[in-house]
Amino acid sequence: METLQAYFENKGALIQQALRSLMEEMSEVPDRLRESMSYSLLAGGKRLRPLLVLATSEALGGDEKQALPFACAVEMIHTYSLIHDDLPAMDNDDYRRGRLTNHKVFGDAMAILAGDALLTKAFGIMASAAKEAGMSADSALSLIEEASIRAGAEGMVGGQVKDILGENQQLTLEELQSIHRSKTGDLLTLSVRMGALVANAQPDQLSALTKYAERLGLAFQIQDDILDIVGDKDKLGKPVGSDEEKHKSTYPALLGLEESRRWVKRLAAEAKELVLHEGIWAERLIQIADFLVTREQ
Amino acid sequence: METLQAYFENKGALIQQALRSLMEEMSEVPDRLRESMSYSLLAGGKRLRPLLVLATSEALGGDEKQALPFACAVEMIHTYSLIHDDLPAMDNDDYRRGRLTNHKVFGDAMAILAGDALLTKAFGIMASAAKEAGMSADSALSLIEEASIRAGAEGMVGGQVKDILGENQQLTLEELQSIHRSKTGDLLTLSVRMGALVANAQPDQLSALTKYAERLGLAFQIQDDILDIVGDKDKLGKPVGSDEEKHKSTYPALLGLEESRRWVKRLAAEAKELVLHEGIWAERLIQIADFLVTREQ
Repeated sequence: METLQAYFENKGALIQQALRSLMEEMSEVPDRLRESMSYSLLAGGKRLRPLLVLATSEALGGDEKQALPFACAVEMIHTYSLIHDDLPAMDNDDYRRGRLTNHKVFGDAMAILAGDALLTKAFGIMASAAKEAGMSADSALSLIEEASIRAGAEGMVGGQVKDILGENQQLTLEELQSIHRSKTGDLLTLSVRMGALVANAQPDQLSALTKYAERLGLAFQIQDDILDIVGDKDKLGKPVGSDEEKHKSTYPALLGLEESRRWVKRLAAEAKELVLHEGIWAERLIQIADFLVTREQ
Repeated sequence: METLQAYFENKGALIQQALRSLMEEMSEVPDRLRESMSYSLLAGGKRLRPLLVLATSEALGGDEKQALPFACAVEMIHTYSLIHDDLPAMDNDDYRRGRLTNHKVFGDAMAILAGDALLTKAFGIMASAAKEAGMSADSALSLIEEASIRAGAEGMVGGQVKDILGENQQLTLEELQSIHRSKTGDLLTLSVRMGALVANAQPDQLSALTKYAERLGLAFQIQDDILDIVGDKDKLGKPVGSDEEKHKSTYPALLGLEESRRWVKRLAAEAKELVLHEGIWAERLIQIADFLVTREQ
């Protein structure tokens, strides 16, 4: 099996090309809006969410071509959320993925609208992809419903609200987990479940993969908090120490750095156990869990 | 037949109740976010778009219960667009529907997120509604694709971008029409087409209704521009003269006030002609076209 790095590079290029095509296929988009959307969407990043869609589909023997547009849709949702989160009215960040944030280049109005447009497009892509994959009305519409819930007020957007309201407050571990379950966890879980659903996962497989995704999501967030303390600005493509600066509650602040590291390892181990399941080709999903423990960006 | 005013009141109450229920059914939404979403969503307004969904479905003998959630979805999309358009980074408006704008009450961050959440929810509602109505995968997914196109970069969001880029510029009539076709026209057309599609419109009926909606959309926008000059602040629930203040190109500025009024009348007459079509119960759609010519708000 190719290394995870090779996999990330190959599939990353595939995703990049698919995102580029999706942007090019949109007709009658004002140039400035297209530039603003593409600037953030095509800027790279880890592509963790779309890779999870592809890897999960692959783990069930699914068709990569059918999974790819779903991977793109979830990356669009992720990108829109970054653009909006970076706005001066929110986190007010100047850098993202090593480049100026969207609003620093295109202005706040265009950044808001580019985010809106990416979110809107994501649902259109899911609908087209479900049609293309020949999914039943029930499966396809349930998937879109779930995407709406996990990305919206009950999921990611709600998590961002809780995060903002929790700034400058001493949160409990439970409150912090609730924030992250929705803010980052829901979209990671959606990615895995999309990959599973488009590959016609059996209920027990779907359940195991969902739990895998939940462990992964939490581990990912804790590692993010750790990297904000001990990470390398150049590798991360953004400044470190910003959580402390913004008086955000973090796992290292609540648990200590070493205990946080132990949590990440434990969660990754649990995630790996979960995918040792009938009919799931687990190797790649295990590699991804391992990567999340050791990643530096 | 009941008067249009009675229809608007009855159906307006029905829509209000349905929107309220949809908000209440959402679980685990942070209170502040729910308040911000509800503040704008339940603030009233003309409810023109959801009424068009219901009236079009009714005109084809469709089931009101099946059309109602689509009506709510399109109103959520409309409301999110108003919340974002009112932001300081965009139009910077303090009043809307006679009340303070969302960001004036909840702050910019919450207003951005409430808009994001309403847009996201709208697609979930469409998916649930299509399932509930027993639509085929192909019809349901095509409808969601169309909603994504008309509400997104190729439609409403693109129109807002063109509108912003066109400020302080002398636009031609053609450019102005292109802006409004996407900025307001696409969502009005979507409303009519949703109502038609959920009521299983025949292709020729759908085509006639689409053209009806396009005439209506343009008439609506011209009347909006007229009211911004000659309207009554109290009836409109927002200040007049704001287009001129923002140096926006308008129909009255390009055509003159009287010629603009003639356009509205001509477009309404064309719209009314179009729905005199086999299998379409046209009375209500004609009333709505007449209303758009005489409305003062």
